[in-house]
Amino acid sequence: MTTLPGLLVSFEGVDGCGKSTQAELLCEALVGRGLPVGAAGAPAAVIREPGGTEAGERIRALLLHGPDGLAPWTEALLYAAARAQLVAEVVRPALAAGRVLVLDRFLDSSLAYQGHARGLGVDVVYALNEPGLQGVLPDVTFVLDVDPATGLARVGGAPDRIEREGLEFQRRVRDGFRELAARFPGRLRLVDGERPPGVVAAEIEAECGRLLEARRV
Amino acid sequence: MTTLPGLLVSFEGVDGCGKSTQAELLCEALVGRGLPVGAAGAPAAVIREPGGTEAGERIRALLLHGPDGLAPWTEALLYAAARAQLVAEVVRPALAAGRVLVLDRFLDSSLAYQGHARGLGVDVVYALNEPGLQGVLPDVTFVLDVDPATGLARVGGAPDRIEREGLEFQRRVRDGFRELAARFPGRLRLVDGERPPGVVAAEIEAECGRLLEARRV
Repeated sequence: MTTLPGLLVSFEGVDGCGKSTQAELLCEALVGRGLPVGAAGAPAAVIREPGGTEAGERIRALLLHGPDGLAPWTEALLYAAARAQLVAEVVRPALAAGRVLVLDRFLDSSLAYQGHARGLGVDVVYALNEPGLQGVLPDVTFVLDVDPATGLARVGGAPDRIEREGLEFQRRVRDGFRELAARFPGRLRLVDGERPPGVVAAEIEAECGRLLEARRV
Repeated sequence: MTTLPGLLVSFEGVDGCGKSTQAELLCEALVGRGLPVGAAGAPAAVIREPGGTEAGERIRALLLHGPDGLAPWTEALLYAAARAQLVAEVVRPALAAGRVLVLDRFLDSSLAYQGHARGLGVDVVYALNEPGLQGVLPDVTFVLDVDPATGLARVGGAPDRIEREGLEFQRRVRDGFRELAARFPGRLRLVDGERPPGVVAAEIEAECGRLLEARRV
């Protein structure tokens, strides 16, 4: 929750949980309502994380297709670095201008993947991210909860470095997201992602509609 | 100061202060004493920071020759990320094996440049670096103190992104290093770097000789 006038929505979940699809559907629905979606001056689009800036995309390449043997703290710091750049360059200016942003992953991925599943500790990983967030937190975060086996089966193409970690790691990631949802119930919404995409999308759109009405964006 | 058997020496100072030259001279002197210098299995050499690993060199390229408009927190997190990788991949294993490492920049550069000169705060920048250091601090850090105007005049070739910041920024960096030397007098040694290189090198080598004798490396 930020004090800026715009609205920030993030999607989270294990690999293959359907969050990219749902983010796209929400983005389209918001554009359909005539809302200013995405970064100013750019086509309305979901912003993927890590990425969304030139530096962020270079960091993303290093994280997902870089050298083997990236140390866990290096990984956590690189995600935080890409996020800090996105916040400074895109998120804060867009929210200050009253725009609506839909993010495919954000802070909670670091907490669930590095903090919980890799065992670095949720609080320490949060602390690494906090300065770069500059007070920005999503107004709402939808965690698409699916069986990690379902998720892995859905992932198409060559798996990236994180996806190659396998089912046991994805199970710990899912546990991490569930713990975060229990810890931050005001911001995180656990959504059953095993249902048909249209049903899930309708629920998410309705929830965003309520938030927008409350915020009068 | 680490509890590992090796010895870790770092060199710090403003751009053009002579630290790379002094690091090379110390490296040669230590090799001359028959000590195991540098990473195991690699030729004895100074390790430059950011860098020293494949991921670290890619991060270095992004920091020094990457896109303009890198946010201050992004910069601080990228330096911390490169450092965490260097510690995990090179520094800890080498120190555990009783080796001697000579680093051209390390933690204190982040504290002086990002913490002090950019105004992010020395304590916050330290906190970002702490987990990735895994308890490793230099046994001794030589801060080569020179007038920043002398330093800038010495820098040859095309200046990198940081060097382009100019004299006023370098003055704040120098102040930052001086404050660190006052704050951590056990580890940091302020060395007058305006004297002839041979004089400076002799002083540094003598100090390392005392440390090595005390540590019996």
